[in-house]
Amino acid sequence: MNANNGSGTIDLNCDMGESFGAYTLGRDDEVMPFITSANIACGWHAGDPSVMDRTVRLAQAFGVGIGAHMGYPDLMGFGRREMTLSFEELLDGCVYQIGALEAFCRKNGTRIHHIKPHGSMNNRADADITTASAIAEAVRLTVPDAPVFAKPGSLLAEAALSKGLAVRYELFADRAYHKDGTLVSRREPGSVLKDPAETAARAVLMATEGRVRTVDGGEMTLPCDTLCVHGDTPGAAALIRLIRSGLEKAGVGIARG
Amino acid sequence: MNANNGSGTIDLNCDMGESFGAYTLGRDDEVMPFITSANIACGWHAGDPSVMDRTVRLAQAFGVGIGAHMGYPDLMGFGRREMTLSFEELLDGCVYQIGALEAFCRKNGTRIHHIKPHGSMNNRADADITTASAIAEAVRLTVPDAPVFAKPGSLLAEAALSKGLAVRYELFADRAYHKDGTLVSRREPGSVLKDPAETAARAVLMATEGRVRTVDGGEMTLPCDTLCVHGDTPGAAALIRLIRSGLEKAGVGIARG
Amino acid sequence: MNANNGSGTIDLNCDMGESFGAYTLGRDDEVMPFITSANIACGWHAGDPSVMDRTVRLAQAFGVGIGAHMGYPDLMGFGRREMTLSFEELLDGCVYQIGALEAFCRKNGTRIHHIKPHGSMNNRADADITTASAIAEAVRLTVPDAPVFAKPGSLLAEAALSKGLAVRYELFADRAYHKDGTLVSRREPGSVLKDPAETAARAVLMATEGRVRTVDGGEMTLPCDTLCVHGDTPGAAALIRLIRSGLEKAGVGIARG
Amino acid sequence: MNANNGSGTIDLNCDMGESFGAYTLGRDDEVMPFITSANIACGWHAGDPSVMDRTVRLAQAFGVGIGAHMGYPDLMGFGRREMTLSFEELLDGCVYQIGALEAFCRKNGTRIHHIKPHGSMNNRADADITTASAIAEAVRLTVPDAPVFAKPGSLLAEAALSKGLAVRYELFADRAYHKDGTLVSRREPGSVLKDPAETAARAVLMATEGRVRTVDGGEMTLPCDTLCVHGDTPGAAALIRLIRSGLEKAGVGIARG
Repeated sequence: MNANNGSGTIDLNCDMGESFGAYTLGRDDEVMPFITSANIACGWHAGDPSVMDRTVRLAQAFGVGIGAHMGYPDLMGFGRREMTLSFEELLDGCVYQIGALEAFCRKNGTRIHHIKPHGSMNNRADADITTASAIAEAVRLTVPDAPVFAKPGSLLAEAALSKGLAVRYELFADRAYHKDGTLVSRREPGSVLKDPAETAARAVLMATEGRVRTVDGGEMTLPCDTLCVHGDTPGAAALIRLIRSGLEKAGVGIARG
Repeated sequence: MNANNGSGTIDLNCDMGESFGAYTLGRDDEVMPFITSANIACGWHAGDPSVMDRTVRLAQAFGVGIGAHMGYPDLMGFGRREMTLSFEELLDGCVYQIGALEAFCRKNGTRIHHIKPHGSMNNRADADITTASAIAEAVRLTVPDAPVFAKPGSLLAEAALSKGLAVRYELFADRAYHKDGTLVSRREPGSVLKDPAETAARAVLMATEGRVRTVDGGEMTLPCDTLCVHGDTPGAAALIRLIRSGLEKAGVGIARG
Repeated sequence: MNANNGSGTIDLNCDMGESFGAYTLGRDDEVMPFITSANIACGWHAGDPSVMDRTVRLAQAFGVGIGAHMGYPDLMGFGRREMTLSFEELLDGCVYQIGALEAFCRKNGTRIHHIKPHGSMNNRADADITTASAIAEAVRLTVPDAPVFAKPGSLLAEAALSKGLAVRYELFADRAYHKDGTLVSRREPGSVLKDPAETAARAVLMATEGRVRTVDGGEMTLPCDTLCVHGDTPGAAALIRLIRSGLEKAGVGIARG
Repeated sequence: MNANNGSGTIDLNCDMGESFGAYTLGRDDEVMPFITSANIACGWHAGDPSVMDRTVRLAQAFGVGIGAHMGYPDLMGFGRREMTLSFEELLDGCVYQIGALEAFCRKNGTRIHHIKPHGSMNNRADADITTASAIAEAVRLTVPDAPVFAKPGSLLAEAALSKGLAVRYELFADRAYHKDGTLVSRREPGSVLKDPAETAARAVLMATEGRVRTVDGGEMTLPCDTLCVHGDTPGAAALIRLIRSGLEKAGVGIARG
C-alpha cells in the first residue's frame, strides 16, 4: 500500500492517437506497452477516424484503458490555442467527440474507460466554471460511469464530483508547479523538466507521497491517482520505463485508474 | 392494406439538421411535423454538434425517427462532390458519424432509428461495392438493429441484406427515373419535378402500387417502404402536406418505416 | 463640406461575401447597389473561392471598393469566438487571406481597396497590441496603399498609423457605445439598435458632426470616415437607403473612403 | 549542351512546405540546398500560413524557385483522393491558393516562379480537360509568366500551351512508366523505384537523352526540363545528392527550369 491514493497502485496515462491523415505524431507503438490509460484524440484537435480505430485496437492489445481526449475544433492549433466557446458549444462538442470514440469502442467490442479533456480546453477547465461544467455535463449524459481525469483543486474536478462522476486526480511528473498547485505555463522557461532521472524521481514522490516540488523551491502535497507521461519525444518510451522501474522499486503497482 | 409494401403504411423521410454555425439551411421547424423519419447530418457534409442536438430534440418532439445521414468530409461541397475513399476510410468515417449522432440520442434518451447515406456517398453506393459494403459494415458494427434506407436494386441494399441488416426501399417522388430504376442525375434537365400536384400524384402511385414513371415515358414497378421528400425549398411544407393528403385519400397510413 | 471628416463625403461599408458552399448568408445582391465599400470574407470565417470571385465581380459592377475582411480560422463559430493566436499566426493568417482576395481582384482586373478585420479579431485589435500590430504588419507587407478601417481610439488605428498606413475611422450607426468610445458587446441587451429611423438619424449625426450617443445618455465626438451598415437582415437594403437619404438631405456626399 | 531540352541544364523540383500546425512532414531543411525548384503547398491539402512563410524564406535562402503546389481541399486525404470539382470550383480554388502563396512571396520580396498542381489534381489534369483547362486558366489570370510543370503528353501541358503559358516538361526518376508515357499508379506494386543507384542512373538518362524505361521493358523518348525528386524519406537528401552527382558527371548543369 505504497501509493498515496490508498489503492496501492498508480495509473500511467499518455496522449495517443494524435496522428492525422498523412501526418504521424507520437510513438504510439513504442509507448502503448508501458502505460495503463490512453487519452485518444477524437478528430477535432488531432486524430482522424482511421487513426482512432487503430489506436483503440492498439490499446486493447495491451489492456490499456481507452479515454476520450476531447479538444477544441482547431486542428491547425492542435487544440492548444485558447478559444471561447459557449456552454452549449462546449457541451455539444464534447458529446460529439465522446460519441465518435464510443462508436470505435463498440466496433471493437470494448468501452470508454475514462475522460480527459485536451490542451487548452483542459487548462481552461481548471478555473472556468463554464468549461468545467460543460465537460462534466457531457460525461454525465453520455458515459456517466467513466471517471474524469482532473487536476487536484481544479473546477473540473469539482464539477465532475458535484454531478456524481468519479474523478481521478492527475499529476504531471515532468511539469513545474506553482505553489497554488497550478502548472507553470508551457510558455515559461523551465516549465517542462528535461532530465529523465529527475522526472522519474518526481514521479515516485508524487505516487507514493503526493509530494510536489514547486518552482519557488517549496513542496506541497496533492492527491495522485494517475501520472501523465508524454509520448511524443524520441526518448519517451525510455523515460516511461524509467518511471515504471522507479515506481516498482518503491513498491507501487501500476494499474488502470 | 393499400401500401404496396404489405404493411399498409408508408414512411416519409426528409433530410434535416443541415444548418452549420451561422448558416441556416432548410425549414426543419416547418417540415418536421409532417414527416416520419429525419435524416440528420452528422457534421461532415453539414450539421454541427449544436444543430445535431437541436434536431434530435425536434424529431423527438414530433415522434419522428432519427436517422444518421453520413456524408463525405466536404462541407464546401455539401457532400455532393464525388470523392474516392478507401474501404477503411469509408467504414471508419461512417462509424465516426454514426457514433457522434448516437451520443446526441443517448443524451436525449432516445436511439438511432435508421441509416441513410447522404448525397454523393449514397449515389456511389448504388453501384460501387466498396462504398456499399463499407456503409453496411459500419452499421453492422455500431447500430445493427437500424434499417438502412436504400434504393431498390442498389448494391447498398444488397450489401445491407447480406450482412443481416434490415433494408427499407426508398423512392423519390420528385425525381425522374431511368428505365433501369436509377435516378436521372441532378445535373440533367428535367431531373427534378417542380409541379407539386404531379409530385403528390406520383407519391401516391409509388406508395400504393410501387409504380414509377420513367423518363422515356414508360413505367416500372419497384418496392417502396419510404418516400424521400425535400425540405429546403419555400414550398416544402406545403408539398409534403399535399403528399400526405393524397396518401390519406388513397387509404395509405403514414408511419415510421 | 458637411461631413465632419473634412472631405464632404462619407463612406458606407458592409460585410459581403459571407456565403459558403451550399449556404447563403446576407443579401449581397440587394445591398451592393447602395454601399461604397464591401468587406469581403476570405474563406476562413466565411466565404469560399467561388463566393469570393462572385462578390468581387458584384462589387466591381457597382463601383464598390473591395476590402479584405480577414477572420479567425473558425467557420463553425463564424469568426465570432475569441481565439488566442500568436503574432506570427495572426500575421501569416492575414497575409494568406489578403493574398487570396488579391488574386481574385487581379483575375478581374481590379485591386484591393481597403482592409477591415472581422468579428472577434477586429474586437481584439481594439485593445490587444499583438493583434493590432500583426494585422497592420500584414497590410504593410502586402497591400501598403490600402487604408485600414478601424475604430477611433483603437490600438489597430494606432498600429496602422505608426506603420505609415492610412486609417479610415469607422463608426456603427446601429450599435450602442460606452462613454469611452468602445462598443457595447453584442451579448448585452440593447447593444444593437432595431429602429430604422433612429439608426438613420444617428448615422447623419455621426457623419456630419461625429456625434455619438452613449448608453448612459451622454454624447461624445468621434472622427468618422466610414459608417458600417449591416446586410444580413430582411430590412437591410431598406435601412441603408434610409441612411443614404438622410445623409443626402444633410448634404453629405456618399463616396468610397 | 548535354541536357536533351537544349538548354544544357536540368531543373530538380521537390514538394516542400507540407507540414501543418503541430505536424511535421518532409525534410525541407535537408533537401532545399540540393534542389532548384520547390513546389510549396498552399494550405488546402497541406501547409499552413506559417509553414508557407517559412518555406518561402528557406527557398529564397538557397536561390530555389518558388512554385505554387495547389491541391484539393482535403487535408485528411493529403490531396491524394480523387475529387470531382466543377470547372469554376477548380479555377477559383487554384486562384485562391496561388494568391495566398503570392502574398508570402510579396511579403518576402520575391515572386512565384512556377506552378505545379499536387497529387490527385495533377493526375486528373493528365487526361481530364476540365481540370487541365481550369488550372491553366487560373495561372493565366494570376501569374501568366510562371511556367507550368506538366507531364509530356498531358492535357495540362496542352491546355497551358494553348493559353500562351510556358510549360516545363517533368519526368519522375523514381517512378515506373507505361509505354504510353503515363505513370504507373502508386497503388501498383513496383510503381516506385527504391534503389538509389538505379534511380540516379535513370535521372541521368532522362536528363541527357529523355530516355524513359517502361514497365514492359521497353524504352521511349520524352522531353525533360525538370526532374521531380521526393523529399519525405530518410534517404531523400542522399538520393538527391546522388542524382546531382550523376548529372554533373554527365555534364548536365543543374539550374532552375
